[in-house]
Amino acid sequence: MNDFVFHTPTKVVFGKGTEDQVGALVKEQGGTKVLVHFGGSSAKKSGLLDRVCASLEQAGIPYVTLGGVVPNPLLSLVYQGIDLCKKEGVDFILAVGGGSVIDSSKAIGYGLANDFDVWDLFDRKNTATGCAPIGAVLTIAAAGSEMSDSTVITKDEGMLKRGYNSSYCRCRFAVMDPELTYTLPAYQTASGVTDIMMHILERYLVKEETMEVTDTMAEAVLRAVRKYGAILRDDPKNYKARAEIMWAGSLAHNGLLNCGGPVGDWASHQIEMELSGMFGVAHGAGLAAVWGSWARYVLDEKPERFAQLAHNVCGVADSGDARADALKGIENMEDFFRSIHMPTNIRELGIDPLTEEQIEELAEKCTYFGQRTVGRFKVLQKEDLKAIYRMAR
Amino acid sequence: MNDFVFHTPTKVVFGKGTEDQVGALVKEQGGTKVLVHFGGSSAKKSGLLDRVCASLEQAGIPYVTLGGVVPNPLLSLVYQGIDLCKKEGVDFILAVGGGSVIDSSKAIGYGLANDFDVWDLFDRKNTATGCAPIGAVLTIAAAGSEMSDSTVITKDEGMLKRGYNSSYCRCRFAVMDPELTYTLPAYQTASGVTDIMMHILERYLVKEETMEVTDTMAEAVLRAVRKYGAILRDDPKNYKARAEIMWAGSLAHNGLLNCGGPVGDWASHQIEMELSGMFGVAHGAGLAAVWGSWARYVLDEKPERFAQLAHNVCGVADSGDARADALKGIENMEDFFRSIHMPTNIRELGIDPLTEEQIEELAEKCTYFGQRTVGRFKVLQKEDLKAIYRMAR
Repeated sequence: MNDFVFHTPTKVVFGKGTEDQVGALVKEQGGTKVLVHFGGSSAKKSGLLDRVCASLEQAGIPYVTLGGVVPNPLLSLVYQGIDLCKKEGVDFILAVGGGSVIDSSKAIGYGLANDFDVWDLFDRKNTATGCAPIGAVLTIAAAGSEMSDSTVITKDEGMLKRGYNSSYCRCRFAVMDPELTYTLPAYQTASGVTDIMMHILERYLVKEETMEVTDTMAEAVLRAVRKYGAILRDDPKNYKARAEIMWAGSLAHNGLLNCGGPVGDWASHQIEMELSGMFGVAHGAGLAAVWGSWARYVLDEKPERFAQLAHNVCGVADSGDARADALKGIENMEDFFRSIHMPTNIRELGIDPLTEEQIEELAEKCTYFGQRTVGRFKVLQKEDLKAIYRMAR
Repeated sequence: MNDFVFHTPTKVVFGKGTEDQVGALVKEQGGTKVLVHFGGSSAKKSGLLDRVCASLEQAGIPYVTLGGVVPNPLLSLVYQGIDLCKKEGVDFILAVGGGSVIDSSKAIGYGLANDFDVWDLFDRKNTATGCAPIGAVLTIAAAGSEMSDSTVITKDEGMLKRGYNSSYCRCRFAVMDPELTYTLPAYQTASGVTDIMMHILERYLVKEETMEVTDTMAEAVLRAVRKYGAILRDDPKNYKARAEIMWAGSLAHNGLLNCGGPVGDWASHQIEMELSGMFGVAHGAGLAAVWGSWARYVLDEKPERFAQLAHNVCGVADSGDARADALKGIENMEDFFRSIHMPTNIRELGIDPLTEEQIEELAEKCTYFGQRTVGRFKVLQKEDLKAIYRMAR
């Protein structure tokens, strides 16, 4: 069992209509000038942006707005945000959106609090000593960025997608109204469900000793996400299901579910990150497309761990043969992904065929051009990554 | 499902030897003069107090000490602590101990930050607007005060035991080294295990709709606490078991396990609180002594909920008869308490006999002299309380 630090200072305000509390929450945090940061037109069309701005106005807090965040948020907009905040004297960033908007906000926050090029963080050339305060109004349950310490940004030039983790960027508050997710396209809902499951699986599928309290809570959340994910496929305006998934999304990535265990594997995330960097696929869908191939490739390092997943989450009876049960569990997981209309290979992502040249480039980028290995359950070299991309195509 | 606010800002630093980080942690929080608050002689004898003070000295932080906290911590010592802190210019309180020491520290913190008699909080005459910052070095897994928003203090005069809850008092950090609990007497370990289970059960045994993510995590933690509680009975220096129980103790009471549900029942706690106020019994043992009687008394309000506990935690097979399964679950819980040498009635607490006059007084005090009802699963009046005390004696 590992020592650990658990620190989730984000104040979660969860429930119907909670977005109307935004002004009061910013005030509580001492914000005096806000950047309202958002994505496309849906936040405008739905009226959410108006309500958030009205809440700020009611609290007497001036603001400026910056929209245009895209999935796999771009460094160029982060630079724009930093410039705007400096010019306008912004001291609080309010993210209205999902993981991309929150990550873009975090990167702007890093840019404001550190006097070097913010990309240096993602490029491993520097470390942060702070981050401007951020709050979030969540509109999709998926990335878990509203409580996490992680940020992922894509550099426009070369579409390099890189992450940076530190406690400084954790949101001061997260407003979570499950009703805001009612109108998401089914594909996005399912991608989010997958992303949530993968955040848990990356932490859970490890070889080292773990904490039982953590393991069994992870299994409990995984079971609930599968159950309510399936319900949402048929009943997207089911409040209970939306709420269960939304809260699970935060728990999956706030650190709770790897207390006492190692840092996790994260190879599936790295493998997918290159795919979505190159092809712009939805992150959750990309994860569903590669996970089964990764799992079968690394399984033999410790079949018992995959068997535990099979028994406690996938409903596979214990046959006494860990490897056989593990394989049944992986199949069951893929069956679940298919049941919510997620792909289980790269072809189903619309990338057909993935060429050998592309595989070479993906694997090369994934190792940071030979500077690192990937994953921990099995430590993957470039040739391993190529094998997994081939299995998954 | 209820709306909720989840806010656990406490930074948990968990693992072997983490008490040596105390000086750095106080510094991180901006503390410049510390009150080291503790209980009896064990913290001195074990050398823990010396190590904590050495860590403060190494960080260049001056401190004063105040020992003498007793189980069911007394208001008189809280007043002493407030006076000492004011005289010495203390701006950070470091609790070295268990729930009693942390609660005493919280009450001192309230006293420093509010300009009225601190007992007014517990007497419902006033509300807090702040609390001086507190850190904890935990020495027993039980009360969960290291991450909770609650404080329980006993007024010497009349031995009135009262609680007060607010977010202001949450610890800035909690240092948790499972090895510090190796030398606890077996009875205290078992009382702690019971207290932890009861913190979960009070939240779990409710009639209203709950969140499934929360329910199933609660069940997971309960199963783990039973498993590792039993291991500690025979193997008190088992690091994994100590760690599982210690972390479970924080999760049980930090708010995680009632997200989306109602506030909980808390009748068993109120019923026990009067017992320990009058007879000074160990809180966990007192809870074990009364819980079964409470459960049988209220069960018929919603047998299905007790049956869920029986099925998912106690290993009772679903017979289709919720009431029968519920009763089996309650019996199984009592069997567990007996297996770790906890009492399941008041006589086994050494109170024999509990007289009718005492029952009258306990019930009277428990309703705050007729000013309140107790519990929510079934709302209990004075006569209900008397019936439960009689069943439990």
